Order: sequence, then C-alpha cells, then structure tokens
Amino acid sequence: MTPIPYSQIEIGKERTTGGRTITETDIVMHAGQTGDFYPHHMDAEWCKTQEFKQRIAHGTLIFSIAIGMTAGEINPLAMSYGYDKMRFIRPVFIGDTIHCKVTLTAKREHKKPGYGIVDETVEVFNQNNELVLVCVHLLLVKF
Amino acid sequence: MTPIPYSQIEIGKERTTGGRTITETDIVMHAGQTGDFYPHHMDAEWCKTQEFKQRIAHGTLIFSIAIGMTAGEINPLAMSYGYDKMRFIRPVFIGDTIHCKVTLTAKREHKKPGYGIVDETVEVFNQNNELVLVCVHLLLVKF
Amino acid sequence: MTPIPYSQIEIGKERTTGGRTITETDIVMHAGQTGDFYPHHMDAEWCKTQEFKQRIAHGTLIFSIAIGMTAGEINPLAMSYGYDKMRFIRPVFIGDTIHCKVTLTAKREHKKPGYGIVDETVEVFNQNNELVLVCVHLLLVKF
Amino acid sequence: MTPIPYSQIEIGKERTTGGRTITETDIVMHAGQTGDFYPHHMDAEWCKTQEFKQRIAHGTLIFSIAIGMTAGEINPLAMSYGYDKMRFIRPVFIGDTIHCKVTLTAKREHKKPGYGIVDETVEVFNQNNELVLVCVHLLLVKF
Amino acid sequence: MTPIPYSQIEIGKERTTGGRTITETDIVMHAGQTGDFYPHHMDAEWCKTQEFKQRIAHGTLIFSIAIGMTAGEINPLAMSYGYDKMRFIRPVFIGDTIHCKVTLTAKREHKKPGYGIVDETVEVFNQNNELVLVCVHLLLVKF
Amino acid sequence: MTPIPYSQIEIGKERTTGGRTITETDIVMHAGQTGDFYPHHMDAEWCKTQEFKQRIAHGTLIFSIAIGMTAGEINPLAMSYGYDKMRFIRPVFIGDTIHCKVTLTAKREHKKPGYGIVDETVEVFNQNNELVLVCVHLLLVKF
Repeated sequence: MTPIPYSQIEIGKERTTGGRTITETDIVMHAGQTGDFYPHHMDAEWCKTQEFKQRIAHGTLIFSIAIGMTAGEINPLAMSYGYDKMRFIRPVFIGDTIHCKVTLTAKREHKKPGYGIVDETVEVFNQNNELVLVCVHLLLVKF
Repeated sequence: MTPIPYSQIEIGKERTTGGRTITETDIVMHAGQTGDFYPHHMDAEWCKTQEFKQRIAHGTLIFSIAIGMTAGEINPLAMSYGYDKMRFIRPVFIGDTIHCKVTLTAKREHKKPGYGIVDETVEVFNQNNELVLVCVHLLLVKF
Repeated sequence: MTPIPYSQIEIGKERTTGGRTITETDIVMHAGQTGDFYPHHMDAEWCKTQEFKQRIAHGTLIFSIAIGMTAGEINPLAMSYGYDKMRFIRPVFIGDTIHCKVTLTAKREHKKPGYGIVDETVEVFNQNNELVLVCVHLLLVKF
Repeated sequence: MTPIPYSQIEIGKERTTGGRTITETDIVMHAGQTGDFYPHHMDAEWCKTQEFKQRIAHGTLIFSIAIGMTAGEINPLAMSYGYDKMRFIRPVFIGDTIHCKVTLTAKREHKKPGYGIVDETVEVFNQNNELVLVCVHLLLVKF
Repeated sequence: MTPIPYSQIEIGKERTTGGRTITETDIVMHAGQTGDFYPHHMDAEWCKTQEFKQRIAHGTLIFSIAIGMTAGEINPLAMSYGYDKMRFIRPVFIGDTIHCKVTLTAKREHKKPGYGIVDETVEVFNQNNELVLVCVHLLLVKF
Repeated sequence: MTPIPYSQIEIGKERTTGGRTITETDIVMHAGQTGDFYPHHMDAEWCKTQEFKQRIAHGTLIFSIAIGMTAGEINPLAMSYGYDKMRFIRPVFIGDTIHCKVTLTAKREHKKPGYGIVDETVEVFNQNNELVLVCVHLLLVKF
C-alpha cells in the first residue's frame, strides 16, 4: 500500500492491464451469483435465433471483471465513490479475451473539505482491440 | 416476454423486489470471479483495524446482485444501454439483507431513429431501509 | 406472492419455461456440490468407451435445474411436499438445452384437515423436443 | 468397479454413510446452480417472520447431496432408473449435519428381459437422528 | 474407517485411481480460489504466443485434484504430515484426463515415540500415460 | 513482467504478503474442487469428537491459497519447477487469517545448461503469528 494524496495524482497518466479470456464458466457463475438467467446468457438455442447467434456475457460480468483487473496497488488515501457513464459498446462472447486501459482523465475538489474526486476512465477492449465497455470510475481521494 | 414499446412506458412507475441476504459466500465467490482480493473484502483481521471493523462487500458485487434482482420480465423491445450516476452510499456487511426499488424516472428520444432512452433509477436498501447504492439504468427501447 | 387456495387450482392447466443450456460448468459444479465424481460425469476418456461416447449430466443435476426453472410465482398457501415417479428417460449431454412443461394433473384432499395435495407433472425436454426426465411434484395446499 | 448381478442382490442389506454439515455456502451455491432464489433460502430477514425463523435448505439440495453421499462403489451392471416417494419430512437448517441410511427394500423383474428393478430406500437424518428426507432409488440391474 | 497401524503397512503396495478430465471450469475455479490469475492459465490470446500455444492448468490445481483422487479409505491411525519432491513434469491442458498411481515406497520410525513415517509416492499421468506430476506424500502413522 | 535472470537473484531477500481470512466457503469449494469430503473438513459433528473440536482446512487448500498469495510480479525468465519439504505444522480453522513470508534461501546451477534453481522458502502464519505451513518453492531460472 502506497499513499498517494490528491495533489500528487497526475491527469493523463495511463496504465494497461494484462488480458483475461471470458469463459462459459464465468457466465454460468455470474448467472448463479446474480440470479440473472436471461436467455441471452444461458440459452444457446434461443441465441441462435437472435442477432449475435450465440450467448453473450452479462454486462455486469464484464464490468465486474474489468474493475477487478484494474485493481492494482491499494492507495489507502483513496476510496471508490461510484461510476459514471458506463456504456456497453459491443457484446462479449465466450472465448473473447479482454484487457483494460485506465486513464486519469480529470480531477476536481469535492464538497467534503480536504477531499477531491479523481476520474479514472476505464476502457475495456477485446482481442481485436475493439472497445466493448467504457466507464468512468470516481475515486474520492484525501488531499 | 411481453413487448412494451417506448411510447407505452410510463414515467413514475415503481416496482420493488424481494430481499436477499448478502453472505460471506457471495463475497468470496465475487473475489474469485473478479480477482479483487483487496483486504477490505478478504482480510477480517485487517478490517478490525479500519473504520467499519469488519469485511465489506465489493461495490461491483452489490451492483451486480441488485441488477440481477431487478431483472424481471423480458421486454424484447428493450436492451441495456448502460448505467449512469452509480454511487456507493453505505457499506454492505456480511449478513445484511438488501432489496431494490426501481422507478422509471425519465425518457427521451435517442439519436438512433426509432429508439428512445428510458431511465430506470435503481435504489438498493439494507434491512434498516438505509440506502446503500443508487444508479440509473439506461434502456434503449424501440418505438 | 399471490395466494391461490386449493379450491381455485384448475386441473389441466399448463405452463412452459424458457430454455437453459446444460454446460460442462454445471456438471463440474454439481459434482463438487454433491461429491458424485462418477466417471460417467467426469472422465471423458472412460466415457468414450461407453454407450454414449461422452460425459452425461447427473440425474440429480437435471432434476434440480428443472425444478429451479419451474419455480415461478410463490403461492404462500402451497409448500413442496415431495416428488413421485421421477424417471430418467434419456441422457443429457454437455451443450444440450432443456426446457420444461408443467401440467396440473390431479388434486385430492389430504389427511391433514384443511389441506389438499396437488400433482404438478414436470416434463423436461431437450432441444430436439425429446423427453429426458419426468416427475410428479406434490404440493400441499391450504383450502 | 465390482459387477453385482440382479440375482446376487440381497434384500434387507443396509449401509450407513458418514456425515456432512450443510452450510450457507451449499445453499448459496445451489441457488446459483438452479436459479431458485426463493426467500425461504436466501432472505434471512423474511425468514425471521416465518414459522422456522431462519433460512432452510432447498429440498433439491438435500436430495442431491444425500444421493451423492450414498454413491459408493460403482456396480457396472446397475444404472439409476429413477426415484419414487421422495418426501420432505423436516426442514434442514444451516449448520445441520446429515447422514444417510440405505436399505435394499425390494426387487422385482422388469418388463425389459434380462433386467430387474431394485429398490434402495434412502433415509436422510439430521444430527438429532430425526428423519428429514426419504426416497426410494430405483436401480435397473442386469441379471 | 479401518485402522491400519504402522507395523502392518506393506512397502511396495500399489493402487490406481480412476480418471478425471481437467476442464476449463476447474482452472477458472482454481484461479478464483487462489487468486492466481497468471496469463498462463487465464489468457488464451497470450498463451498462443507461448511455447504450449494454449492455457495450462495451475500446478497447485493438478496437485490438489490428484491428492483428492487418492484420498480413499480413512485410516484413523494416520495423518498427513507433508509432501516432498513435488515435481511438475509436463503441463496439463484443458481436456486432458488424469489418473494417479500410489505406491508405498518407504517407511521409517519417527522421532516422536510410537509413530512412524510412511512414504506414499503419488504419480499423476495424463490420457497418454505420460507422467505429469510426481510427489511423495508423508503420512505419520501410529505403531 | 520484469525479467530477472538467475545471476541477479539475491539470496536472503524477503517479502511478506497481505492477509486472507480462510472461510467455510473456501473449505466447501475446495472439497468440491478436489473431491476430498473427509469428515475432518466437512462434518462438524464428527469434528466435535476429535482433538481440535472443529473442522480444519484441507492441507492442499492452505498450500494452494498461500502459493496464490505469493504470486506477485511475473518473472518471464523463471518457471515453477516443484516444491520440497512441505510440512503441515498447525491446523487452520474457519475464520483464521493467514499471511505469508517468502525468503530466497538458496540458489544453485541446474543440470540443464544455462539454468539455475532458486529456492523460495514460503512460510504461512496465522493471525497469532504461529507458523501453520512451510514449503520450499523451486524455481527454474534462466541465466
């Protein structure tokens, strides 16, 4: 754990994660964890009749795994405040491999004195470098 | 599956889900699914030295379970477009029981002709009716 | 939850569930839950030497998933009493997609005054509409 | 694997399994496997308002675990044909420890020439030796 | 449980387990249990650029499953003392089927009076009978 | 990934991991993954009659989690060669929190030209700083 105060956070800084292959296991486990057994994720026969012809990963699965992948060193001065502008750009299929790019895109003072908000833009790409999900992670960081 | 076109979606409509108890199992499984083994979720000894004195659920876990709980009837004319303004208001502890309230709070035409965006505000409460998480689910719905 | 007393239950009423694809993950998880690691489910090499040439799902897995799929609205006046005449008609293989048909086939008064037994016949079909499992679910319902 | 033909199966023979403690993990995993998130199993707050005051295990969970526990030596001449008279006698709570008694209670010739049906009565008891579940396992065995 | 004292353990005795197919599910679950999400196990795209061209099972997974497969009858006079000379000979890929051979290779008195150490050499083979892992399981056994 | 050749590896270097609480979920999942349902891990009633009065974690579980916890930065010049002298010193109970200390204790040339073996001694401690498991991880490292 390395403490990095608000003042030392540099806008524009980027980091990239390794990759992770999204498996049928991940989808079945996520359905089991969330109770979302929609046919888009669980019924291969029905999916054959739909636009993408195959099962697609839950949006909440790709989001959760991506956030897990971007969880690097702990900054004890920062805590997760929320997320903005999460958008599902492309479906993720079984066997796709995703990786993430994290960019510090903005920072501003918070109403709570002695704290600021830092925006981490998280972009998730598949193995063809196509953007599949984007969101802005808001971190509340001590001065 | 009951098709409900954009025009028939009524702003102000509410629905409430049943409850679900968040267990140690959910946290351990979510760490395993996402790779987020931060001590806030996994190290009961370290947590004793922190503000809340106990392990807390991952934000992505509560979000994913809440979205799963709100997944009711499938509207084949609607698809999940994204989420806005997700905020973590209070921590969720092992043994807390959450339920959700979903309110259709806004709708507007989308740039893609023949489609509109519907805002579902999802509020997640614990067993004391305290708000723990809020977000706006954006649905892209055919006219 | 909608209370439906014994007297209002109509024999002959049918409902059909959506589909669910049975995956290798389901079989591995069910072995792990039950401790049944028989080679019929877990040893692809041995299965190649047997009649079906491939791994087959546990009977208890298909039964448990089917019962889960048929769990719709809760009737607070009914409780699960047991099952009769469960028969395994055909094997279910990895990648098969099952769905269920539930028919209210009989009802009769129970020895416990003020209660009746309702028979729900559950039929499970694969993607070729072949019957794979059948059982009768007995529900104890208040008058 | 030891082949035991129909003719050598002795009615009245009994065997008893070891014990297994039913955990919250088992219930959460079984909900995830089957999609049955009924509040009886998943909502500790709601359960406090009900007869048993606490969450109870799914019937299909106790059945599946019990059958797994009774799966001993493989008899290559026998296959599972189905189950009769499954009855849920008492609820199983988190922390209860179950064990099983298996008794060969009947045998008879089957319509398929060269085969017989053997009835294995499976009784499941909790740590107080109270019967919680009973069923009859039908085995199709070669002569 | 059958008690077998140290004095009755015969060096040279062998036993062989049945087989088990190692699945993608096993690898994803083991990553989730241990937190080891190294690309060797989880990133199929990166693996294509490496020597083996595909994901490989964790060494700790194959070891844990093999030890589970060799856990037969409980000897109440013996307890697991440790392991020596564990070596990873060949990678195990998704879809490989492993089985184990256990040989009692040595025994000797222990410093704790009334106890001896027994060496069980565990060899794990794939479906081509190639050795993939070997280790020596040390058992502390009462005289 | 940072390549560190054999020549640059410094004997005596130490690192310590964060902590992780071992839960009932971990034990149930590990039984499910390995098929080891011995009563020492799964039968709380039987355990009450034994020395430790409660369920204990599988040795292979603590070993696997510890190795996962020590998996830090990938050294692309190193690969896992095996383990020596794994010893189970104390039992780990549900709710114990473990952490690991890794010390580079020895290095030597390997018979394969251009490679050396590095010994990483892994010590696993509980929340009372009592040693529970020790082993030596052998790494094959390029010159």
